[in-house]
Amino acid sequence: MKINRHFLELHDSYLFSTVGRKTAEYIAAHPGRKVIRLSIGDVTRPLAPAVIDAMHRAVDDMSKKETFKGYGPDRYCYGYDVLLDSIVHSYARKGISLEKSEIFISDGAKSDLGNILDLFAPENTVLVPDPVYPVYVDTNVMAGRKILFADATARNGFLPMPDFSVDADIIYLCSPNNPTGAAYTKEQLKEWVRYALKKDAVLLYDAAYEYFITDPALARSVFEIEGAKECAIEFCSYSKTAGFTGVRCGYTVVPQALIREGTSLNKLWARRQSTKFNGVSYITQMGAAAVFTEEGEKQIAENLGYYRENAAIIADCLDGIGIRYTGGKNSPYIWMECPGGMGSWEFFDYLLENANVVGTPGSGFGKNGEGFFRLTAFGTKEDTAEACCRIRDLLTK
Amino acid sequence: MKINRHFLELHDSYLFSTVGRKTAEYIAAHPGRKVIRLSIGDVTRPLAPAVIDAMHRAVDDMSKKETFKGYGPDRYCYGYDVLLDSIVHSYARKGISLEKSEIFISDGAKSDLGNILDLFAPENTVLVPDPVYPVYVDTNVMAGRKILFADATARNGFLPMPDFSVDADIIYLCSPNNPTGAAYTKEQLKEWVRYALKKDAVLLYDAAYEYFITDPALARSVFEIEGAKECAIEFCSYSKTAGFTGVRCGYTVVPQALIREGTSLNKLWARRQSTKFNGVSYITQMGAAAVFTEEGEKQIAENLGYYRENAAIIADCLDGIGIRYTGGKNSPYIWMECPGGMGSWEFFDYLLENANVVGTPGSGFGKNGEGFFRLTAFGTKEDTAEACCRIRDLLTK
Repeated sequence: MKINRHFLELHDSYLFSTVGRKTAEYIAAHPGRKVIRLSIGDVTRPLAPAVIDAMHRAVDDMSKKETFKGYGPDRYCYGYDVLLDSIVHSYARKGISLEKSEIFISDGAKSDLGNILDLFAPENTVLVPDPVYPVYVDTNVMAGRKILFADATARNGFLPMPDFSVDADIIYLCSPNNPTGAAYTKEQLKEWVRYALKKDAVLLYDAAYEYFITDPALARSVFEIEGAKECAIEFCSYSKTAGFTGVRCGYTVVPQALIREGTSLNKLWARRQSTKFNGVSYITQMGAAAVFTEEGEKQIAENLGYYRENAAIIADCLDGIGIRYTGGKNSPYIWMECPGGMGSWEFFDYLLENANVVGTPGSGFGKNGEGFFRLTAFGTKEDTAEACCRIRDLLTK
Repeated sequence: MKINRHFLELHDSYLFSTVGRKTAEYIAAHPGRKVIRLSIGDVTRPLAPAVIDAMHRAVDDMSKKETFKGYGPDRYCYGYDVLLDSIVHSYARKGISLEKSEIFISDGAKSDLGNILDLFAPENTVLVPDPVYPVYVDTNVMAGRKILFADATARNGFLPMPDFSVDADIIYLCSPNNPTGAAYTKEQLKEWVRYALKKDAVLLYDAAYEYFITDPALARSVFEIEGAKECAIEFCSYSKTAGFTGVRCGYTVVPQALIREGTSLNKLWARRQSTKFNGVSYITQMGAAAVFTEEGEKQIAENLGYYRENAAIIADCLDGIGIRYTGGKNSPYIWMECPGGMGSWEFFDYLLENANVVGTPGSGFGKNGEGFFRLTAFGTKEDTAEACCRIRDLLTK
C-alpha cells in the first residue's frame, strides 16, 4: 500500500485550523478574557426569516409519507428545479443566460473548488495568485501539480493581470479577493478571458463574495465577459451571501460551451458528481431557494448592509491610526499592513495577547502576504467596534 | 489543458442514471400507467418524529443571534460533539471502543467512499468484489488504478474470500452486500483482516446496511474483528438506517492505529477533509444525533421492521414462482436470477414494459451480475405487494 505522498508536501495543518488551535490555547490559558474573533470568515447574523420558514416547511415535508423526499432528482445531479430556477433567474438579472443543466448544486464552494480538480490531468500547470485562499494551493499540492504564482502586491493593486509569456492550464481567480478584498473590473477580466482562450486554459472563478459588490464597474460574474463560457467555471456560495456557513450550500456553473480536448467539461463534472456525490439536503435546498425570492433578497440585503457597516468601522479605525489597507469596500475583508514592520504571525500573537483580538496572518495566504493581516467584517457590530477600540488603544499608546 | 482522460474509460452514464432515464422515458411514452420502482435503494418512510423534532429545533437555533451556528467545530473536522458522542455510544454497544477523533461526519457514505481515494497513490492495486456497488469501480477508473475483481457467485454464496496468491493494496468489502444481500460472518471477516494485515493492505468496509442485520453470527462492524483497527476504514450511513437519503449524512471511521508508510491515515483524512470539505449542515447533524437516542432508535426500528416485511413479501413471491434469490434477510436487497435465461437488461425492459415494475439490472454491478436482477425492500408496502402481484402474474402466466 502506497499513500499519496503529495500529502506530505503540505504544511502540517490547514491555516484556519492553526488559527483556531492557537486561539483555543490562549483562551484555555486565560479564562475569563473576552477574545474577539475577526479571523475566519464566519458569519454571525442569523438566517433570514424567509429561509427559516422555508426550512421549517421542508422539515415538515420530510415528516409525512406524502411529501417525504429521498434522493434528489437525477436529472440535474440532485438539484431541485425550484432552486435551479431561482439561480437561473438571479443570473438573468445580471444579463447572463444559463441552462439549468449548467448549474450544479453542492454542499459549498470549498468542496467543489477541490473536487473540480478530478477533471484535470495531474500534468497541467496551475496559476494561483499570491496571496490567496489556501485551498487552491493545497488541493493542487495534494494532486502533485506544478503550481506557478501570480504576484498580488500593492504595485498592481493586489490584482495580478495575465502575463502572456507564462503558460498555465488552470487559473484561479477570486474576486472580490480573499484575503485582499481587491476586485477585478470587467475590463480587467476581459484580459484574463483573452489569456485563457489563447492558452486553451480554464479559469476557475471563485465568486463567493460577489454579493458584496456595489460598484457597477466591477464584475459580479465572470460570465459577464464575452467568451467566458468557453473558458471558465464559476463557483458560488450561499455562505457569505445568505449566512449559510453552517448550512452548507453552493453552486457551480460549468457552461455547456466549455469543451477541452473535444470533451464537454459539463458532462465530465456531471459524471464526477453522480459518482462521488449524492446531492444536498432537501431542507437545505429549500432554504437556499428562498434566498433569491423577493422577500429573501430584501432580508439578506439587510444582513449584507450590517456587515458593510462593520467593514466601514474597521476602515475608519485603521484610517485613524494611519495604517494602510485594501478592501472593506465591495468586500467583507480588510487587508492591512502589520504595524511597525511586524511579521504576520508576530502581529497575530501580539494582537491576541495584548488586545485579545484574533485575525488571520497574511503569510498564511502566500509569501506576498507576509507583513499583512486580514480582518473580517463578519463579526457582530458590538464586537467589531470593541475590537477596533482595543486595536486603536494598543497601536496608539 | 489536459483533461483527466481516465474519465473517458468510464461507461457513459452512472448505472442508476441510466435506470432513471429509461424509466422516465417509459413513463413519458405511457402516461397514466402506474410504474412501481423497486430499483434504486431509495427509502419511502418519512423521517422519525425524534429526528423531525430535533431538526425543527435546529432550524429555530439558526433563526436567533444567540443560538445561530456558522462553520462546524474545527476540532473534529466540523462534527458536533453531541453527534460524535452518539456514534461513540452506538459503537460501544457493539463492544467497540472509539475516540471521537476517529469519527468523521460526512454528507454521506458515497462521497467518502470516493473521496477517501485521495489518500492513496494511483499505483496501488484495487480489489473489488464482482458484482458490487458501481461507485467502487468507477471512482478507481477515474483515478487510473489497476482493478482486480473477486468473483461473487452462487458457488461462494456471493461472498468471496481472500486469495493469498493475489496481491492487492486497497480492498472493498460491502456487507450486507449491495447488490446481493449476502453478509459476512465474523469468522469470514477474520480471514479478510488476516489478509490485509499480511499484505499491508487497507480494507474499505462499507457498512451502509448494517442495521438490517439481525443474525448475531454476522458482523455489524469490521472493528468487531481483532486487528481491524490496523487495516480498515469503515463507512457508515444514515441513509438506510434512518431514511436520510434526502438529508445526506454519514460517518467514516479512520482508526488512529491505521498507519501506512509510517503515516497516520487518520491525520491524512483529517487534512483532506479540512481542505476539500466544510462539514455537514448543523440542522442535519442535530437530526442525525437524534437517531441514536432511545426514542430515535425505537422509531427507526419500526421503519426497519417495515422494510424487512417488504423483503419478506418479495421473498415469498419469488418462492411461490420458484425463482432463486439471495438476500432479503439481514439485508434490504433481493438478488434474483432472471427467469427463462434472460439477460439483466432484457429482463429490466421485459418487467418495465409488461409489469410496469422497475428493478436494477444485475449486470450493472459487474460481469457476474449478468443474468441477475436486484429488487429493493424500500418501497411502500402497498407498492411492494402490488409489484409482487404483477411479477407473479407475468411470470406464471
